[in-house]
Amino acid sequence: MHCGVARTLEVVGEWWSFLIVRDATLGVRRFDDFQQRLGISRNILTQRLQRLVEQDVLERVPYQDNPPRHEYRLTPKGRELWLVLAAMRDWGDKWEPLPDGPAAHLVHRTCGEHTTVVPTCSHCGETLERSDLRLVPGPSDDGSVLPIPRYDGKAG
Amino acid sequence: MHCGVARTLEVVGEWWSFLIVRDATLGVRRFDDFQQRLGISRNILTQRLQRLVEQDVLERVPYQDNPPRHEYRLTPKGRELWLVLAAMRDWGDKWEPLPDGPAAHLVHRTCGEHTTVVPTCSHCGETLERSDLRLVPGPSDDGSVLPIPRYDGKAG
Repeated sequence: MHCGVARTLEVVGEWWSFLIVRDATLGVRRFDDFQQRLGISRNILTQRLQRLVEQDVLERVPYQDNPPRHEYRLTPKGRELWLVLAAMRDWGDKWEPLPDGPAAHLVHRTCGEHTTVVPTCSHCGETLERSDLRLVPGPSDDGSVLPIPRYDGKAG
Repeated sequence: MHCGVARTLEVVGEWWSFLIVRDATLGVRRFDDFQQRLGISRNILTQRLQRLVEQDVLERVPYQDNPPRHEYRLTPKGRELWLVLAAMRDWGDKWEPLPDGPAAHLVHRTCGEHTTVVPTCSHCGETLERSDLRLVPGPSDDGSVLPIPRYDGKAG
């Protein structure tokens, strides 16, 4: 139960935390803006922001001295959640589509076009298909990675 | 608040749901196996499985008649969550590393090597970097996609 998926969920595995990080990637930084956009209670927002700061996903940065005010910015660790968010966005837009089309498009500045994420292999560069992948135990495996023997070994 | 990220979270945006889907991608299908692996209460597991079936992420398939028994298999919609899970796994292994190394490696059968996901653009094929991406409003935008004017427009 300590695989990378579970450890990611320990950090951001809560609905509001994901949406706070999503808004942070859109440039939102201030408490009142998060609060207004998410329609979240101030109490819960305070807790979630504090947890994301403790987990080094956001950093709390002063932007005004008198009265003292802080804003929340993504750390390098937080910024790298963009791919999780992009994969979620693509999946939601495909499988839970809105009648008139998506709320937003991701644009690749380099080519100027709408884009979705095409996953490729870090070793050979080929496009990754789910059926080409398998999970093998690593050094910290606790015995939970191997397939269940009673099944036929095929996933899903 | 109805972007693809939020809609994905409506379907699987709960810790246990993600872990159930993760285990399903490893080939787990039966109630008792999910229960044992996840250490989740039977009550909560029943609720979560039911919700994932309602959302067409899992399907409930009979595998035995007498007594009647069912197992849970990923639907095509559920299977396509693999990329969200892979992105989570890569992030967790990088930013919340275990002292001895990861619990599991993803292997690309085609080349036989350990792999991580390298995201590329569906239009031009170039590797996607976070800084090359921007979000633009789509047909269903409710005004929440555009950057907050008071900021400098840079994300994070």
